[in-house]
Amino acid sequence: MIKWKVYVDNNGTTPLREEVCQLITKTLKCGWANPSSQSDEADEAARLIKISREKVCNVLNCSEEEITFTSGGTESNNMVLNSISKLYAKPHIVVSAVEHDSVSACARNLNKQGLITLTEVELNSDGNILPEDVCAACTSETRLVSIMLANNETGVVFDVATITRLVKKERPGLLVHTDAAQALGKIPVDVSALGVDYLTLVGHKFYGPRVGALYHRLTAPLLPLLFGGGQECGMRPGTENTPMIAGLGLAAQLASQGLSRHSRHMLKCRDYLESRLLETFGDKLVINCKDSPRLPNTSNFAIFLENCRSVNVLERVKFVASKGAACHSHTATKPSQNLLNSGVSYEVAMNSIRVSLGIHNSIEDVDFIIEDLIKVTNELAQL
Amino acid sequence: MIKWKVYVDNNGTTPLREEVCQLITKTLKCGWANPSSQSDEADEAARLIKISREKVCNVLNCSEEEITFTSGGTESNNMVLNSISKLYAKPHIVVSAVEHDSVSACARNLNKQGLITLTEVELNSDGNILPEDVCAACTSETRLVSIMLANNETGVVFDVATITRLVKKERPGLLVHTDAAQALGKIPVDVSALGVDYLTLVGHKFYGPRVGALYHRLTAPLLPLLFGGGQECGMRPGTENTPMIAGLGLAAQLASQGLSRHSRHMLKCRDYLESRLLETFGDKLVINCKDSPRLPNTSNFAIFLENCRSVNVLERVKFVASKGAACHSHTATKPSQNLLNSGVSYEVAMNSIRVSLGIHNSIEDVDFIIEDLIKVTNELAQL
Ligand SMILES: Cc1ncc(COP(=O)(O)O)c(C=O)c1O
Ligand SMILES: Cc1ncc(COP(=O)(O)O)c(C=O)c1O
Repeated sequence: MIKWKVYVDNNGTTPLREEVCQLITKTLKCGWANPSSQSDEADEAARLIKISREKVCNVLNCSEEEITFTSGGTESNNMVLNSISKLYAKPHIVVSAVEHDSVSACARNLNKQGLITLTEVELNSDGNILPEDVCAACTSETRLVSIMLANNETGVVFDVATITRLVKKERPGLLVHTDAAQALGKIPVDVSALGVDYLTLVGHKFYGPRVGALYHRLTAPLLPLLFGGGQECGMRPGTENTPMIAGLGLAAQLASQGLSRHSRHMLKCRDYLESRLLETFGDKLVINCKDSPRLPNTSNFAIFLENCRSVNVLERVKFVASKGAACHSHTATKPSQNLLNSGVSYEVAMNSIRVSLGIHNSIEDVDFIIEDLIKVTNELAQL
Repeated sequence: MIKWKVYVDNNGTTPLREEVCQLITKTLKCGWANPSSQSDEADEAARLIKISREKVCNVLNCSEEEITFTSGGTESNNMVLNSISKLYAKPHIVVSAVEHDSVSACARNLNKQGLITLTEVELNSDGNILPEDVCAACTSETRLVSIMLANNETGVVFDVATITRLVKKERPGLLVHTDAAQALGKIPVDVSALGVDYLTLVGHKFYGPRVGALYHRLTAPLLPLLFGGGQECGMRPGTENTPMIAGLGLAAQLASQGLSRHSRHMLKCRDYLESRLLETFGDKLVINCKDSPRLPNTSNFAIFLENCRSVNVLERVKFVASKGAACHSHTATKPSQNLLNSGVSYEVAMNSIRVSLGIHNSIEDVDFIIEDLIKVTNELAQL
């Protein structure tokens, strides 16, 4: 059994909530029938999926036909981009310069194949995207704008509602997608308030399982990425992963119900962390993108002391945080391109540490982090 | 809590083994860290995935680089076909006329888009595929042959080893895929004996979870379907579904270890079922494809008594079986096209019932099925 230390890498992934674990476990045992076949047990499995879909709809403020369950955020994001690339003849797609790889690598690949043209909108020096810059990037060929709701590394929350309003006003018919992987459970996520046509959800970012969902507005066109047995109205075939889907709905519901309480708590801890960091490291500290609206849980910072490269710091600390994107960071020797694209200098990006707090973290955890950082930076200075 | 009646729809899906449930539950709790990030906990998650991959490799007789975990059989099948369609300029693909929709619908879609040309090889009157027919369908443009190892509806086991040997002899460089969704745990599945380049595995067909894997020979080209964070060596990005992956490996190992015992047991029950059916319904009974080599667990049959359409029978019986493909059979008013393509007449196909036994079934279950069928057919005859 693993004993967890202070875990502050919640933008990477989160532990499952006890209730969600229990529901998944129960569904593994009692909900394993094929939801598409005909028996009482099959009906029960179908019912569990329906309940989960209703929960997701309540959270996002949409209708059941607008939700498709997927294997995760990567699939949801790829679905939207691939779909647009097939629905139109060489469409122009606009994304931000700091999207997750599941948007940016997918878009670049489609671009390389000559299936789309692509513009990656640059950010301002505070790591934010100006809605007018997104508008300016759109042309009469643009079919899709895909801008994440909150950045996984800096925590900056982009003003997707304004972006959507502006681009749709200027170019009616243009479709907007937002990758809300980092948003649910941290800030409100309401598709109607955002005005988007597509929205990506990822269960394991809000104490749920490793599956996802895609919201697609009734009026927004969408093609399946996979072909097969017609499940999810043909939009996402494959025998439904009922236990994980059930867990996703419950996790979304709990994240939404606890939103104001949890976000207030995480913000308190985050602000305490940053004030203690400042108090401790003074002008040796840089907090990235701190002048932009940020997720309540995320702090991305660099400490400039002798021998204190973030990789070395992270190797020695007793808390679990990350350098750059935690999602897939086996290459820690290069600075994060998304940090550089967020207006962070090379030097600072090379030395940045991301602390992403979760609902389980406490003020004591922050104290632990500070003490630990003091100890480790002292050790390193002595080398 | 659901009380299961006699469940004989195991080709549709199977209940999870207790050990597999336990491992998944444990992994939900202790293996939730992001396997690609850096911490002891992440290493533990990565280790669980490695163990699972080793288990799958042992079962299939291949090396670790040759296994990619996917969200299921549908994705594995789509990956292979999409990959071939992109790797070559309008390649010719040969499939059987009775593939699962995740092969046939995918292939037909690629064909419709003009990305491939497609030949669907017809079966003989016993629901079997003649290797020479597959060979004859191949041309110099053929890049891929995809023939399932065992059919989900009839249970017929196709001679993929001979097909592979013949087509590769005649056309070196041609690639062969087999959808082995229905094979693992019922018949031996050894990629080296089969000689195939790609092979699809589906966890929930062998008492495992709703995820899958794709075997791809080291020398066989493969492109990812999704783009993103580089997981699974870039072949299948997305944060790994560690609990489900761990469960898949264990389920594959247990299926393989119990193979001879379980297949002997299921065969005994199946043969007993068919002899009792014959004894009971005599010349009113047709057993489909019984002269072809079949999976030990599958019996697909029709009973011709007055008012005894299989839909009505299945509605009334107390055991859970299926009509045609259970995977997605909400449309029970048309006969299964795959049964028709297996040499079964329209009349018989309209009246066919598939009993697919599992490792949990017993001779008593068969007795129950027979008694139940007698009762229901009598009832229906009286209407
Ligand atoms: C032969 C065969 N191939 C592929 C699949 C697809 O598996 P899944 O629905 O889990 O993606 C199934 C079952 O549904 C099957 O029976
Ligand atoms: C912003 C963002 N989008 C998408 C994803 C992809 O999610 P997954 O890896 O679960 O597919 C992640 C996390 O990995 C993310 O942080």
